[in-house]
Amino acid sequence: MKTNSVKIEIITIGDEILIGQIVDTNSAWMAVELNKTGFELAQITSVHDDENHIIESLDLALRRADVVLFTGGIGPTKDDITKQTLCKYFDTKLIFNEDVYRNIESILINRSRAINELTKLQALVPENCTVIQNLVGTAPVTWFEKDGKVIVSMPGVPNEMKHVMSTEVIPRLQKHFKTPSIVHKTVMIQGYPESALALKIADWENALPANIHLAYLPNYGIVKLRLSGSSDDVLSLEFAINQQVAGLSEILGNAIVAYEDIPLEKLIGNTLAAKGKTLATAESCTGGNIAHRITTVAGSSRYFKGSVVAYSNEIKTNVLHVSEDDLEKRGAVSKEVVEQMAEGARKLLKTDYAVATSGIAGPTGGTDEKPVGTVWIAISSEKETVSREFRYGTVRLQNIERTTQTALLLLNEII
Amino acid sequence: MKTNSVKIEIITIGDEILIGQIVDTNSAWMAVELNKTGFELAQITSVHDDENHIIESLDLALRRADVVLFTGGIGPTKDDITKQTLCKYFDTKLIFNEDVYRNIESILINRSRAINELTKLQALVPENCTVIQNLVGTAPVTWFEKDGKVIVSMPGVPNEMKHVMSTEVIPRLQKHFKTPSIVHKTVMIQGYPESALALKIADWENALPANIHLAYLPNYGIVKLRLSGSSDDVLSLEFAINQQVAGLSEILGNAIVAYEDIPLEKLIGNTLAAKGKTLATAESCTGGNIAHRITTVAGSSRYFKGSVVAYSNEIKTNVLHVSEDDLEKRGAVSKEVVEQMAEGARKLLKTDYAVATSGIAGPTGGTDEKPVGTVWIAISSEKETVSREFRYGTVRLQNIERTTQTALLLLNEII
Repeated sequence: MKTNSVKIEIITIGDEILIGQIVDTNSAWMAVELNKTGFELAQITSVHDDENHIIESLDLALRRADVVLFTGGIGPTKDDITKQTLCKYFDTKLIFNEDVYRNIESILINRSRAINELTKLQALVPENCTVIQNLVGTAPVTWFEKDGKVIVSMPGVPNEMKHVMSTEVIPRLQKHFKTPSIVHKTVMIQGYPESALALKIADWENALPANIHLAYLPNYGIVKLRLSGSSDDVLSLEFAINQQVAGLSEILGNAIVAYEDIPLEKLIGNTLAAKGKTLATAESCTGGNIAHRITTVAGSSRYFKGSVVAYSNEIKTNVLHVSEDDLEKRGAVSKEVVEQMAEGARKLLKTDYAVATSGIAGPTGGTDEKPVGTVWIAISSEKETVSREFRYGTVRLQNIERTTQTALLLLNEII
Repeated sequence: MKTNSVKIEIITIGDEILIGQIVDTNSAWMAVELNKTGFELAQITSVHDDENHIIESLDLALRRADVVLFTGGIGPTKDDITKQTLCKYFDTKLIFNEDVYRNIESILINRSRAINELTKLQALVPENCTVIQNLVGTAPVTWFEKDGKVIVSMPGVPNEMKHVMSTEVIPRLQKHFKTPSIVHKTVMIQGYPESALALKIADWENALPANIHLAYLPNYGIVKLRLSGSSDDVLSLEFAINQQVAGLSEILGNAIVAYEDIPLEKLIGNTLAAKGKTLATAESCTGGNIAHRITTVAGSSRYFKGSVVAYSNEIKTNVLHVSEDDLEKRGAVSKEVVEQMAEGARKLLKTDYAVATSGIAGPTGGTDEKPVGTVWIAISSEKETVSREFRYGTVRLQNIERTTQTALLLLNEII
């Protein structure tokens, strides 16, 4: 898989990742884009805003990789030192760049702001670099070449990084290197824990050709199997991978949720849109997270009408018309209440389907009979309303995420 | 800041991070915990499931750091090779561990599953390690020592890693090393772009003592300023940092949102709970994300009653009683409609405050007059209903996140 591929390493610069104040979502996004365009991301390294550490990391990365992509550390404030450090590394100096200055001016005008002493400093760039204009931010992108290798320094602000990567950096890298194509195919499977799945498909896995690599990616009720390989002959490789997927399909049948790596909410959206059906949610313990996931999909307004987040019992009765008697006798976290929530939402919002959740997200609020992590999920359609009970753990955010994921999996089965 | 501190590096193992199929949230969590307990996280490195690369990374990390924490690559399937690689590195072999086997059995019984050939393999551990039982999963944690340095291999599954880190790994590291305390103090500021803030506080920043380090962390309408230092004399350091914060407070006054690093939703929750006030949301373009953020806070049911996610116009009129006439003449994304949504939700859900959003999240659906990214936010209280218009970009998820964040900032000001 690794022969002849162009190896890239990412170095993220900034204390914020290393003290955990932000999660490094940039690298995951870059990884996807680089893989799609035929590059191999070989390593991600996160270091502090520290000159020696940055230089050491760059040195090591250049021994292993063909391209080093820096993100972060190029803001206007004192803690950002990447630009100065690169000058030191390349033994050059900062010079004023007129084009960058004009770009900064126009960016700031758009934001109704004036240039100040600090934003003006952003127009200083290392003398030996090629400047790539950052059309969505004030920090310029700088491109360096050394012994056939490429070093690029980009902003760490996610939307700026994404914009320059998509429009400038990746196209320039593709021109600079001849890249073999990487083929990935992901199959999403439900109903099997990772090890049970591995046993089920052991013979198939052992018979995989050497140039196709398999990875297991378990995630809340779903295991993603990713088959991948790289080749100059994409068509043959795709054919070989598809053949293997066909074999997998024979073994696993209905347990396969999708033949692509697609968010569940998008898969559900595609089905609903294709069938012309509509959806609503009635959420207690998930607090709007199911609606949120569904509405992250562009075009979801075609099939998603809305949600009632019924956190208080009052709303369950007044808005969703849950029986007060059941609420009192059975409790909010019960089969009766969750089914009435689903039916209530379906009728109120006039949809074909409604999903409802009610549970004890924690960390407190449990009883002996219904400990923290007890969750009921119901799905109502014109035909019937079905519900199931689940027992999760004591971690609030995890319970919210798991309930959301399980509700989407159940919905996906039913529609 | 770095004298005498115990340096730790994290190495995450697994293709999934390097092809972007998952975001590395583990490292951010570990970073926070390590910092809190007086360790310095010096580098995070993500590598593939590749023997040579893992060994090279470990070698380099041990040259720089005192502790190397591995996560991932210890599942039961063939693509996971960390255990075998560590055996090779330490020139030892895998042996069967009876205690681990019994732990696997009891974990699986809890999940109503039987042990199989693969889960059984998890009981094999390198002969030279100290085994730490993983009480929430089947992959054991292994602890190695070499020339006074410590290497720990942990599962990559977030809840398993978090459990063993909190209960075993960190306490054992604290025993093993003498750690100086690290003091962090974060001040959250609104209303200043990063560079304007830097100019505003330049004199203060330049006068900071050498042992106090300052970092700017901008994030959607808020800049967090983090002051940090490490010392054996925590009290003096805390005193010095608090003095600096007092100076900052004089300069910035009301622009300071909080004197701690606290999620906005928690800050709002604290205020509402303290004042005995209640909240509802009426969400169009944010699709339930405001309700979701508010309900991630434990105990939010005390002040949060619920939400109406009114994605379709029908629900805006039928449930929230928005005027059909305004919807038609002004459009769903208008001052009139968003204010009526907020008022409608406040009355329907009988709360003291309600937040409403209506906007064009994109990527399509805009017009010349109201381009993608146009958003109205309203906040209704018994006293009055106020609203403001915003113009964001064309990226759907970003528009949802920004609108959510801005709505929470406005709410925080008003309550």
